[in-house]
Amino acid sequence: MTPNKLNLADKFAAFTEHWSPKIVADLNGQQVKVVKFQGAFVWHHHDREDEMFLVHRGRFDMEFRDRTVSLEAGDFIVVPRGVEHRPVAAEEVEVVLFEPAETLNTGSATDARTVAKPERI
Amino acid sequence: MTPNKLNLADKFAAFTEHWSPKIVADLNGQQVKVVKFQGAFVWHHHDREDEMFLVHRGRFDMEFRDRTVSLEAGDFIVVPRGVEHRPVAAEEVEVVLFEPAETLNTGSATDARTVAKPERI
Repeated sequence: MTPNKLNLADKFAAFTEHWSPKIVADLNGQQVKVVKFQGAFVWHHHDREDEMFLVHRGRFDMEFRDRTVSLEAGDFIVVPRGVEHRPVAAEEVEVVLFEPAETLNTGSATDARTVAKPERI
Repeated sequence: MTPNKLNLADKFAAFTEHWSPKIVADLNGQQVKVVKFQGAFVWHHHDREDEMFLVHRGRFDMEFRDRTVSLEAGDFIVVPRGVEHRPVAAEEVEVVLFEPAETLNTGSATDARTVAKPERI
């Protein structure tokens, strides 16, 4: 079946919550999600999933236990499985995620912001 | 090991060839590639791989047998396995690909532009 195109800005315009990834595409057992960060997230890792973060608009810091990496629009980073990380955004930032379909946003941690079943938009 | 960040514009600035995807990241058996299109590619499909195209800069048409979808910066499309497609770009366009590591750019077709072993940049 012929697919339709989607648009990142349209997807980000469709929601306002922070720390709640929305699924925008499925492929090869992976998902593309869009998420808005603001504030500091919980320290966590993913046992079996590598996770890619691509900044669409704004900036945030990806904290690791040994250092912090600051990312701006157009920057991306792949956090390998097992590596503890914590995203921190002084102001709202729009981020695209590429990760396996089963990836839980808080990984190894449980938090009020854990989203067991992300919404599709 | 703590990962480094990468930047899409830097990656696109690192090469000039058309139709020759470059690997910029590996995760979960998938790869993120960057590619520049100009002109018309070969009609092809992928038997086992869904393929995502995200426009970074410029525009192109994704032709399907039944219709054409025009994509601009910020637009993306997932072409499911088995679906014949042909990218056509009137002017140079920069595209990010997300697909399984084993994906061949020309899929089912063989062409002078087939890249058996994409370069890493």
